[in-house]
Amino acid sequence: MRNLCLEIEYDGTNYSGWQVQKNCRSSFVVRRSKKTIQGVIEKTLRKVLQEKVKLVVAGRTDAGVHAKAQVANFKTKSKILLKKLQWALNGLLPGDISVSRIREVPLAFHSRFNAKSKAYRYSILNRAFPSVFLRNTSYFFPYPLDISLMRRESKALLGRHDFSAFKAAEKKERDPVKNIKRIKIDSCNGLVYIDIEADGFLYNMVRNICGTLIDAGRGKIPRGGLKKILLSRDRKLAGVNAPAKGLCLLKVKY
Amino acid sequence: MRNLCLEIEYDGTNYSGWQVQKNCRSSFVVRRSKKTIQGVIEKTLRKVLQEKVKLVVAGRTDAGVHAKAQVANFKTKSKILLKKLQWALNGLLPGDISVSRIREVPLAFHSRFNAKSKAYRYSILNRAFPSVFLRNTSYFFPYPLDISLMRRESKALLGRHDFSAFKAAEKKERDPVKNIKRIKIDSCNGLVYIDIEADGFLYNMVRNICGTLIDAGRGKIPRGGLKKILLSRDRKLAGVNAPAKGLCLLKVKY
Repeated sequence: MRNLCLEIEYDGTNYSGWQVQKNCRSSFVVRRSKKTIQGVIEKTLRKVLQEKVKLVVAGRTDAGVHAKAQVANFKTKSKILLKKLQWALNGLLPGDISVSRIREVPLAFHSRFNAKSKAYRYSILNRAFPSVFLRNTSYFFPYPLDISLMRRESKALLGRHDFSAFKAAEKKERDPVKNIKRIKIDSCNGLVYIDIEADGFLYNMVRNICGTLIDAGRGKIPRGGLKKILLSRDRKLAGVNAPAKGLCLLKVKY
Repeated sequence: MRNLCLEIEYDGTNYSGWQVQKNCRSSFVVRRSKKTIQGVIEKTLRKVLQEKVKLVVAGRTDAGVHAKAQVANFKTKSKILLKKLQWALNGLLPGDISVSRIREVPLAFHSRFNAKSKAYRYSILNRAFPSVFLRNTSYFFPYPLDISLMRRESKALLGRHDFSAFKAAEKKERDPVKNIKRIKIDSCNGLVYIDIEADGFLYNMVRNICGTLIDAGRGKIPRGGLKKILLSRDRKLAGVNAPAKGLCLLKVKY
């Protein structure tokens, strides 16, 4: 038995997420196929390996969310060469899913439980006219954003906190305490990037934080307001859930 | 009467080109909609202006070819504010066409005849695995390319020449003499860019040059071979027409 670990890049536009989420409502907003990324990759692996396998993923991404380097592992009896397996997968997978790396890992390795941190990037196209090339991978927001206000408020989020204010509205979370290790806001050529790295995230947490930071950038949150929202642990005080298309899982660290 | 000039960005993936080309065969290879970019924009202008207008374009791009800054002008009786027109157009146009700028130009201005030069970029993804985010805007070529060989051979193309060796196979061209002002090959993060600027191009000329430069990068063309192909004026000696998806009209200079 071997434990194989895939690094996967995907454009989540046409999928209902890594796997079907029970209380995901975005599928009602944007019409998407019912296909999941996990489902498509497992089906392709089954074709190549002639064996049914089960993927264990680092971070389940939501409908419309992308990944530059998602990590997922699976156990197999197959002795196929890894280069050969990668070529076969990329030959059979649709153009919006690609396997960038495959390596063998110890049998005990678990993509999710062994992850030390995950880094997400949220991309906002902040200019007067939309971009055709970034239309599926950024949130087009044409109103002025004050990056310095966003940066100032974002600092309140650093460190270990109860992030209940930024959880999904109806969702019950077992452990709302997470540790944000890094939060960085940059802008370049009309694009505003919000980079957030944490040991874990509540469901919808990144997008709820980004929606709130956009409010801050619009001047709708007074100085120290984000800290107040965080401490309140009240989801109703935070901003709206920013659209899925702007979000991308950049990196999983082990 | 006003003469308005649009700067347009488009993702050509789902179009049969700027307008329908008579001897375009790529539509047989990739199944595309029969829609043209010109047709979609003219229809939208008609909706906004309540007037039938005719676009004059700087460079007719082929099916699947993209543009960062295509230029097209049209005459109108409308007195609409330009900012308002831009917002209306971008609100009504599909996500793969966007108007980045509108300005009023002298009545005598003609997007094509007044153009001094056009700059195209051809993008090759030269690494072992495909990219989901660049799948429609680059040509995935996983075999090693020697950039220095491509650069060396490309120099023969600089200046004023008869480019019949790089014309479309069956096409008769009125004037096959063009002046290539700049040709530059760069690579960055697995992407190879071929930038070509000329006073004009024959139909399929950029893609035929790029197909031949890829042959050079593969070591299939001996030293000085590209110069020989150019001087032969024989289309049969040059390489294949590189896929449309890698090509983008970057800039039109006036």
